[in-house]
Amino acid sequence: MASQDARLSNTAGQVITCKAAVAWGPKQPLKIEEVQVAPPRHGEVRLRILFTSLCRTDLTFWKGEGQTHVFPRIFGHEAAGIVESVGEGVNYVKPGDHAIPLFTGECQECRYCRSGKTNICMKFKIDTDREVMLSDNTTRFSKDEKPIYHFVGTSTFSEYTVVDQACVVKVDPRAPLEKICLLSCGVTTGVGASINTAGVEPGSTVAIFGLGTIGFAAAQGAKIAGASRIIGVDINLSKKELAKKFGVTDFLNPQDYNKPISEVIKELTEGGVDYAIECIGNTKLMEAAFESIHDGYGKAVITGLDNATKRVILNPGQLLYGRVLTGSFFGGYKGKSHLGDLVQKYMNKELQLDDFVTHEMPFEKINEAFELLNDGKCLRCVLHLK
Amino acid sequence: MASQDARLSNTAGQVITCKAAVAWGPKQPLKIEEVQVAPPRHGEVRLRILFTSLCRTDLTFWKGEGQTHVFPRIFGHEAAGIVESVGEGVNYVKPGDHAIPLFTGECQECRYCRSGKTNICMKFKIDTDREVMLSDNTTRFSKDEKPIYHFVGTSTFSEYTVVDQACVVKVDPRAPLEKICLLSCGVTTGVGASINTAGVEPGSTVAIFGLGTIGFAAAQGAKIAGASRIIGVDINLSKKELAKKFGVTDFLNPQDYNKPISEVIKELTEGGVDYAIECIGNTKLMEAAFESIHDGYGKAVITGLDNATKRVILNPGQLLYGRVLTGSFFGGYKGKSHLGDLVQKYMNKELQLDDFVTHEMPFEKINEAFELLNDGKCLRCVLHLK
Ligand SMILES: NC(=O)c1ccc[n+]([C@@H]2O[C@H](COP(=O)([O-])OP(=O)(O)OC[C@H]3O[C@@H](n4cnc5c(N)ncnc54)[C@H](O)[C@@H]3O)[C@@H](O)[C@H]2O)c1
Ligand SMILES: NC(=O)c1ccc[n+]([C@@H]2O[C@H](COP(=O)([O-])OP(=O)(O)OC[C@H]3O[C@@H](n4cnc5c(N)ncnc54)[C@H](O)[C@@H]3O)[C@@H](O)[C@H]2O)c1
Repeated sequence: MASQDARLSNTAGQVITCKAAVAWGPKQPLKIEEVQVAPPRHGEVRLRILFTSLCRTDLTFWKGEGQTHVFPRIFGHEAAGIVESVGEGVNYVKPGDHAIPLFTGECQECRYCRSGKTNICMKFKIDTDREVMLSDNTTRFSKDEKPIYHFVGTSTFSEYTVVDQACVVKVDPRAPLEKICLLSCGVTTGVGASINTAGVEPGSTVAIFGLGTIGFAAAQGAKIAGASRIIGVDINLSKKELAKKFGVTDFLNPQDYNKPISEVIKELTEGGVDYAIECIGNTKLMEAAFESIHDGYGKAVITGLDNATKRVILNPGQLLYGRVLTGSFFGGYKGKSHLGDLVQKYMNKELQLDDFVTHEMPFEKINEAFELLNDGKCLRCVLHLK
Repeated sequence: MASQDARLSNTAGQVITCKAAVAWGPKQPLKIEEVQVAPPRHGEVRLRILFTSLCRTDLTFWKGEGQTHVFPRIFGHEAAGIVESVGEGVNYVKPGDHAIPLFTGECQECRYCRSGKTNICMKFKIDTDREVMLSDNTTRFSKDEKPIYHFVGTSTFSEYTVVDQACVVKVDPRAPLEKICLLSCGVTTGVGASINTAGVEPGSTVAIFGLGTIGFAAAQGAKIAGASRIIGVDINLSKKELAKKFGVTDFLNPQDYNKPISEVIKELTEGGVDYAIECIGNTKLMEAAFESIHDGYGKAVITGLDNATKRVILNPGQLLYGRVLTGSFFGGYKGKSHLGDLVQKYMNKELQLDDFVTHEMPFEKINEAFELLNDGKCLRCVLHLK
């Protein structure tokens, strides 16, 4: 590692030319390009990305349906790497530190960060429309002197990227980066949606809509929290076998029933589950999650992102009976404050990541990885950049 | 009181003929009729109602817009009286006890009642469509041997009514029934919506939509809980003066602005209030309440009942940022377990009821009381039945 650190620091203060997968337009295959990555400015950190995986959120904004179109753009937010250099005023990390980028940052100073009630930071909360660095509203990426835009402050589909110091967490250098990259989004989101946001309790019943990485991680979280029944809902039959690995006790395919899946769930659970977690990104399924919980204290948690023009339509009478509806970004975990613990839990085998890595590929095959995810054929495909 | 008790017990086991205000059809003036009230059956209690007030819920179901039409029906659910007689198996109250009926009962045995997480009882939760007693699906009211139907298990617009023992709470006989009748719905709902459901905390900001009894009681609850700013929203200007009495710090009339009221609230509160409580019964204002809270941990609580066909339409992206949406029946208070405490708080002057009683009338003038409430000219009008 020492020689690598030295090599990294040689580039400090300089523009780095490296490979990145650039999205030139919606649904156009990404193109591996040589891009320029400017040095980090005040309060910023330049990371060398070693591993990046793909999450449906990347796919959603690449497709751009009902979303603001920002192109050319470098997507990617689930990754791990090494600090290459830091800008002025950065004391949180130094070159050579192992680090994970955070799509939803933590300034540790604002009213929300200090409230102890949320992981949403007033300043660095995820903003999928923002295409520049917050410090000066410009981009650090360019090609032929034309700007290439950022995505959720991370843009990890690049050998080097620049992030704000609020958007990076230092991790134990003994932890395998090719696994813990999954903690920078999917697994953390799902596990936390169950444990933190829903607050699953021993003996409770949970329904999970969508069995991708977020959904299976939510199942893992529910299992850790002691749920007695974990109902997994998915239309992709191939998830059925996999489901057992992650603690799902009942697999339901909505296409097997000629009534709404919420009715099926209510019949299975004497009136509804205690907790329902939507991990698809489909407003109809968000409504189904809300329908599947019972009155009194049933809680529905949304983690998925649909087309931004879509709306959730609720019967307010069901709210009156005490149901709760909320959402979860990054599982309610604060990146800087909590991610170190999750890394330790993985290393202590209290949290499992390995089964989520169903595929690995060289970075250059990123379009294949997009297809796998789009077709529901992988959980996480980890791309190797070195 | 002794002689009265004796008189009451003379009627035990017999059908009582008494006056009731019968609604024969939607929007038809109530008619004071002589009706027959059958004796209480197993597990039931017959109450002599001495005072009943009117709540907008009565008005909503009498108008019947978008609600199931159940007529002829005896409305009324905010009241206080004395136990006249009890059916077999009732050991909770005895003739002569002072009591308050509960539109949302508490069996103290079901999964919800035992959960400690909700005041909604699986068996006796409010059901505005139910027109009969739960024990045997028949009605205790009749006229000329034709059934007259119940409303939310209470039907207090009658000199005598029959309720399930889960739907009545015994109260301190020293408490003035003409005041504490307000605890059987409106004031308890509003106070609890702030204290229990929203969980207002010292220093927090609260917006209250609709300044009727529920809204002003919510303001009182927020004040008791230590809110630093209580924004009251109403289109009826006459509420502005009254608002100060109940702790409202800022009165806003949406008609004074040419932008959504949620925008005005956001500007006043650096991005939104901590808590917003809807006390109107209008889905558009429920949406406005949700819009008025801030990201991270803002919480919107619905107490109002709109036309049952109306829906709330939400942007799920706002849920993802950690906002919470829920509702509150009866302020999260369990009738049997908690109402005695509220009566004591009133007697200790820690809770105020008197200012809510803006009008009093003999029972016979009930249609005038309906008009006052419909026209926004009263908070509570207490009808005297004796
Ligand atoms: N809130 C956050 O912080 C956060 C973080 C990461 C991802 N997300 C979002 O979570 C969602 C899931 O992400 P992922 O990476 O696990 O995606 P994924 O594509 O791996 O999984 C989605 C699953 O949903 C299933 N599905 C699709 N339509 C369905 C339907 N109609 N009924 C039942 N199942 C259906 C698919 O078969 C698939 O198994 C996405 O919307 C993503 O944008 C949110
Ligand atoms: N959840 C419960 O347990 C429970 C209990 C009692 C009543 N309620 C419901 O609470 C609601 C309020 O009841 P109440 O008795 O206080 O009614 P109310 O008629 O006394 O008060 C409603 C207030 O809302 C105001 N208002 C009406 N339209 C408005 C608008 N567009 N913008 C701003 N303000 C507006 C009116 O001017 C009035 O001051 C009703 O829907 C009722 O059914 C619920």
